[in-house]
Amino acid sequence: MSSTELSEKDLAYLREAIKVSQQARDEGQHPFGCIIVDENDNVIMSAGNRVPDGDVTQHAETRAVGLITKTRRDLEKCTLYTSTEPCAMCSGAIFWSGIRRMIFGLSNENLIKLTQKSGECPPLYINSRDILGAASHPIEVVGPYIEDEAIIPHKGFWDGGR
Amino acid sequence: MSSTELSEKDLAYLREAIKVSQQARDEGQHPFGCIIVDENDNVIMSAGNRVPDGDVTQHAETRAVGLITKTRRDLEKCTLYTSTEPCAMCSGAIFWSGIRRMIFGLSNENLIKLTQKSGECPPLYINSRDILGAASHPIEVVGPYIEDEAIIPHKGFWDGGR
Repeated sequence: MSSTELSEKDLAYLREAIKVSQQARDEGQHPFGCIIVDENDNVIMSAGNRVPDGDVTQHAETRAVGLITKTRRDLEKCTLYTSTEPCAMCSGAIFWSGIRRMIFGLSNENLIKLTQKSGECPPLYINSRDILGAASHPIEVVGPYIEDEAIIPHKGFWDGGR
Repeated sequence: MSSTELSEKDLAYLREAIKVSQQARDEGQHPFGCIIVDENDNVIMSAGNRVPDGDVTQHAETRAVGLITKTRRDLEKCTLYTSTEPCAMCSGAIFWSGIRRMIFGLSNENLIKLTQKSGECPPLYINSRDILGAASHPIEVVGPYIEDEAIIPHKGFWDGGR
């Protein structure tokens, strides 16, 4: 999908999430990042992956949802922007957070093309829409967008090029 | 499903997970609990829900996987026993943990019958087999079992009877 259909604001926030994914890589973690923005355009949370240093649940989105819901549970009007499509665990975390809008960059299909030869990130062939579409309330899922930019932090990472 | 088809050992561990779910309720948390048992029958992790005190990602299974994988990532031969069928988030966490066998008590369908009128646990109409069946490696999913026992910690909880 080209970036033309995304608003300038959404595009800027998605690029911010991609920046967070690059930072995660630079810090020796897996190249995934996300931000949460409230209805007044405040970035209320930014989180990168912490699986190598932390534990296997510390994906960017599950981490961001865990951190923000320690203090807030009124997130219906927020949007979560994420550099790569959330996995099943993270889609579940987004559901439990109450956030009703999620925008992602790189698709799960295209991520799997990069990671399938790497033991660290075995493929899980189910997409965020399969999960968030099973919610009892509507959750808007928007993506993939600017995959050419979202893929950059992954370049060479999964084939041992670190 | 009756308990007859489950081995005595599996049945005993599933009852242990149900005890953990009762303890979680007694401690003011949501009534969910799980344990992880290794190939030598060591209970290497036991975790109850901590959503009210912690954050929305602190379901029993995601918590257990997070805690154990801080120190161990060799969990292929382990079995995770859980009082109630894992949600999408927890099924994803089980996938990322590498655990290849999961046994649950109360089914997601029967949980939803209890929780759907409670705002705290909105229904998500996707089951653990939908997610774990999408893995690239085989993960054995066993359940529901002894639902009459697994439901007890939930009795009166979701209709304000705390």
